[in-house]
This record gives sequence, C-alpha cells and structure tokens, in this order.
Amino acid sequence: MSTPLASVAVVGCGLIGGSFALASRALEGVERVAVTDHDPEVREQARRRGVAHEIHEDVADTVAGADLILVAVPVASIPEMAISALSYARDGAIVSDVGSVKSHPVQEIESYLEEKGITAAHFLGGHPMSGSEESGLAGADPTLFQGTTWVLTPTRTSDPEVFNAVSGHLRAVGARVLAVDPATHDRIVATASHLPQILASTLADEADATARTAGDGVLAVAAGGFRDLTRIAASDPDLWTDILAHNRSAVLEALASYEERLRRFHAALDAGDWAEVRRRLAEGRSARRRLPTGDRAATLVDVVVPIPDRPGMLAEVTTALGAAGINIEDVEIRHAGEDAPGALVLAVAGRDTAEAARGLLAERGFAGHVETR
Amino acid sequence: MSTPLASVAVVGCGLIGGSFALASRALEGVERVAVTDHDPEVREQARRRGVAHEIHEDVADTVAGADLILVAVPVASIPEMAISALSYARDGAIVSDVGSVKSHPVQEIESYLEEKGITAAHFLGGHPMSGSEESGLAGADPTLFQGTTWVLTPTRTSDPEVFNAVSGHLRAVGARVLAVDPATHDRIVATASHLPQILASTLADEADATARTAGDGVLAVAAGGFRDLTRIAASDPDLWTDILAHNRSAVLEALASYEERLRRFHAALDAGDWAEVRRRLAEGRSARRRLPTGDRAATLVDVVVPIPDRPGMLAEVTTALGAAGINIEDVEIRHAGEDAPGALVLAVAGRDTAEAARGLLAERGFAGHVETR
Repeated sequence: MSTPLASVAVVGCGLIGGSFALASRALEGVERVAVTDHDPEVREQARRRGVAHEIHEDVADTVAGADLILVAVPVASIPEMAISALSYARDGAIVSDVGSVKSHPVQEIESYLEEKGITAAHFLGGHPMSGSEESGLAGADPTLFQGTTWVLTPTRTSDPEVFNAVSGHLRAVGARVLAVDPATHDRIVATASHLPQILASTLADEADATARTAGDGVLAVAAGGFRDLTRIAASDPDLWTDILAHNRSAVLEALASYEERLRRFHAALDAGDWAEVRRRLAEGRSARRRLPTGDRAATLVDVVVPIPDRPGMLAEVTTALGAAGINIEDVEIRHAGEDAPGALVLAVAGRDTAEAARGLLAERGFAGHVETR
Repeated sequence: MSTPLASVAVVGCGLIGGSFALASRALEGVERVAVTDHDPEVREQARRRGVAHEIHEDVADTVAGADLILVAVPVASIPEMAISALSYARDGAIVSDVGSVKSHPVQEIESYLEEKGITAAHFLGGHPMSGSEESGLAGADPTLFQGTTWVLTPTRTSDPEVFNAVSGHLRAVGARVLAVDPATHDRIVATASHLPQILASTLADEADATARTAGDGVLAVAAGGFRDLTRIAASDPDLWTDILAHNRSAVLEALASYEERLRRFHAALDAGDWAEVRRRLAEGRSARRRLPTGDRAATLVDVVVPIPDRPGMLAEVTTALGAAGINIEDVEIRHAGEDAPGALVLAVAGRDTAEAARGLLAERGFAGHVETR
C-alpha cells in the first residue's frame, strides 16, 4: 500500500526536507505538515513558499503529535536532532532521517533509545538516492522523489509495522523502497555516490589545471561527456566534506579499489595492450548496461514469508532483498488468524524477481512462497 | 558568414557523418549531398532514411565535383580515406575530417600532399565536440551540431579562404568554430574527452565488482550522479580503443596527472585533513562553474588583423584564440584594395572577448584593432 501518514513533521528544510514537505502536503490523507529549520531566513522562505501548514522555530512544536518525523539535517547533526525529535515525539511516532551515511548515526540513535529504555517512539534510518548538485530550499521540488530509490536501513530492533508505515508514506511521495542494512548501505554508497563525487571534483580540478597550461580551449571543447562527469563537482563542498568524513573508511576502501583499477587501465595503455584496453572498455559498457532502468515492471508478485518468533526478522528478510538490488514495491503484514500464522507479504516486480527473492530467503531459512496477486 | 557550400560529400555514414549529411541537406543553398559507407547495410539504411541526395558505393563517385568532403570514418582510417578523397576531388575542393585525434593524421595527410605536390585540393582537419554515447547511423540527428564546438586545426600551410569556407558551412549546421593547433587539440581532448571516458568505464566496472561482493543493491542505489558519471561508459569499445591508441601519449600524460591528483585527495581523506578535503571539493566546484555555458553573447565584435606576407598566419592567429578558449563566431577576409592592405576579420562574442583577442594577438606581433559592427 502507499498510504501516507496523516501528520508529518520535517526537521531541517533544505533541498530534501523542503521537497518532502511539499510532496507530503500535496497528498490526499495528509492533514498536517509542520517544518522547522534552525535558520530564520529559511523559515521565512518556507513560509513564503507555503512549504507546510505550520512553520515553527522549535523542534518540540514541530514534532508534537506527528506520526512521522523526518530529520533532514546534515549528517553530523543527525543523531542529535533525531534524539531530540524522539524525546519530543508522541507515543507511537516514527522518526526517520535522510543521512547519506548510516552505520554510526543509526548505532548512536539506537544505543540512546536502548539506554533510556525508550520503546514508545521508533527510529528507522533512511536515505533517498535523489542525487542532485542543487542544495537548499530554493531547489526543493515536490516531484524530487518520483521514481527515486529510497533506502531504508532496518536493524534487528526494527518493527515490521514501522517499516510498513514508513514505506507506505515513501511510496505515496513516489519513491521505491530498498532495504539494506546500515553497513552495507555505507559500503554501496561509498562506491555509487561518494567515490563519484571525488572523481568529479578531481576531474574538474584537473581540467582547470590543464587550462592553465594549455589554454582555456580545454574548457571550450568540454563536450557532453565531460559535462556529465563534472556536473556533481558543483555540489556544496561543506556538505560533502561532512559526508566523506562520516563515511571515511568505506570511501577509502572504494577509492583504493578504484585507484588500483585505474592503475591497471593505465598499465594496459602504457604497454599498448589494446586487447586489454578494449576488454576494460567493454566491461565498463556491460556494467553500465546492467544498471536498472528504473522502469517498474508490469505486475507485482507477492513473496509471502511466515513471521517466526525471531527478533530482527524484518531486517533480515528485507535487507537480504535489498542487498540483491530487489526493491520492495509494497509491504503488508498479514496478522495471525486462528488457522494461519502471521506473515510478511513483500510485493516485488514480476514473477522472476519474486522467485529470486524466494530463493534468497530460503537460503536464509525463511521458507516463503510466491503468490500472484 | 554562415554560408553553406553547395555540394557536400560525406565519406563514412555513422553518427557524425549521417548527422552532417542530414544537417547539410536541410540547408538552403545546398544543392547536392552525397554519402558513401563501406558497409552495404549502412548504405541501404542511408537510402531508406533519405540521408542524402546520392548514396554511392565508391568514394570516387561520392566526392566527384563536391566543394566540401567530410571524412567521417574511425581515426585509424582517416589518413587513408582523406588521401583517397583528395585524389578524387575536383580542383579547389576542400577535404576535412572529424577524427578525435589530430596530430598524426593531419601530419600524415599534409606530408602526402606536399610529397605529391598537390595544391589544388585542400585539407583542413576538424573535430566536432558533439559528445554522445550513441554510435551509428541509427542515432544520427540533423540537430546534433547545434551549439556544439567544432574544432578546426589549421596549420602553417592552411589557406585563410579554406578556413573561411569550412567555418561558414559549420556555422550553417549550427556549430561554433574553435581553432586549435593539432598538438594542443590532442592535449586538451586527452583531458576533456579521453580521460573522462577511461574514468567512466573504470567506475562502471568498479561498481559492478562491488555489486558482486556487496550485492546488486549498489546498482539499485545508483542515483543521478553515478548515472551521469557512467553514461559514456556505454560508448563503443572498438571506437574508443582506436581513439586511445591514436592519442596514447597525451592520454597517458593526462591520466598520470589525474592519478596524482586523486592520490592527493586520497591522502587528505586518509589523514582526516578535512580542511584540505574541503579545499579540493571547493576548487572542483569553482572549476566546474568556470565552464562556458554555451550561450552566445549578445553582440559580435570584430577583431581586424592585417594579413602580412607571412606563411602560416591564419593558423597562428586563429589557434592563438582557440588555445585561449575564444570561439571564432565569424570570419571574413577583407581583400587588399588600393589604399588598404588585406585583413582577416574575426568576429568574437562581445567587446571584452574582442579586447582579450586583440591583446593576445598583439603579444604575437599581430597589430590588430577592434571594430564594432
């Protein structure tokens, strides 16, 4: 289902927070959207743009009574703001975030909840993969999440109902949900997002240095490919320093691996080993072509997994699919009846994907089955 | 002026050749467009698509009587095909090419002309910077060159009238002309085009390898930035092996310089030197922002340079502007009259650019002046 939650609060009104508020506000069934930002100018801008029903100075006023609280502040401030939101949230409220790095922040927030014995409010980490070199409320757009993969990072303490509720709202704003555990998330974004940022910035810098010696002709001849490769070099350096600092070890690993691969390309070129150069270019092409197109496949097919009395089951099941790149198009909990056990019903795109998902789960001891809708 | 030449021949009917034929055919004043391709299937496709007035099997038939012959075959075949075209061309015909590498091919062709004492037909090297991961006639588009920078590589033997005629036709198909000497061309495309290709292919490959260990989630989370950076990884590996092989030394130089820059980024990240990481990201951003937007500035202003009796003047003057990234928006030759010497009139965008051009030329001993139109 893609049922939105009725009362939404957003802490931090930049590109992501602002877009989420705008998208939520436009949904039928959403009764209240409240936002806050520490910057009075941003709050004023939010007011002028009609981003939300309520714009508050205080986090407490913003999150009061909300069903879903989205923390959309820079990575470094996420644990603090999430904890603050959790402490002001009503019983049963859900706090999620949009941080580009997950392991440390999620761990910090969950440890806090455990220490304080807070079980009434819930936290579920998230990260929308809506790449943009834009930043700030000025670039906010209610359609930003249409077709975007929104990663959720459930852990062994995550509640299936919470996952269900958040996914429903995210689908309502147009996103596709992929569940990945926090550590895997950090590793894959290091390669798919943080490494590209470093490569783009370094290429822009390199071209600039070449322009200083060979003349500005280098910039004038910069065609489509170069423009594509350096587009994200225009991103906010403060934001990115923050992200790289928080995901340093995974980024260092991805960077070292990339450098080694580039070195091997260099060696082949240096040796005039054209068969090897060609092989590397051809592999790059195959890899590029394997990228999902973002099309939603025709029919949804359900994978039904009985819920055993086993903590962390939700995270195990959903993140096993996420690591295999399988989006969860819909999630539903079938409650136990007199003659049937409870089950998690995960809708995925197409029968082949459903069979693959069933196989993956069987390997992990979850004996599910596939049901056509 | 953007006056097209009346009779155009295109040798090699792929993405570039096909687009050039289509664009030329659509121009008022073009009476004949003839194309050839060594592949019978491509010729058949060209016929079905109505790419040209005439589709021939032989180069001789294709180029017969043409004013402008464009050789649009892979880099490795350019000298051979250009020489063949020159040998069949009528007196006064101009042969140009679209090769991504210029030094060696241009040298080979010019040596041949000199050896054979051919002065009736002319060669002027070129390279349209219309980056596309497409290839083949299927992707051909008459608007491909709209707003594209088309590099011309005049040398000391190049005739101003020939440069004038080719530029006029290129402008008519929508391109902006930038003159650069062949060696500088190879150096700047190594950085602006060939290096990006290697980086993109290597990144696609790296992500694929990560997907094999961390799961296909890495592909599913690949958002805008990653897609932008790997788009050209989908390019034809044969074509690119050819290009890299022909520009090996310049590419090796650009690659080594990039690797060193990346190593320095890596070191800053490894050391947790966030000020340095931030500085590098910020420099990348400034460099990206310096990229010309492609807007044609409001008014054209002429830089008038008297033509001295000095061979190679055209190449010296035009490539000095090209190396500085100054597009030549129009070119005209003012023939010597009784009371005035002949002059090369170069139109550039805006008074500031014109003054910069005048300064550059003065440094090289060409005492020109600026004239508002």
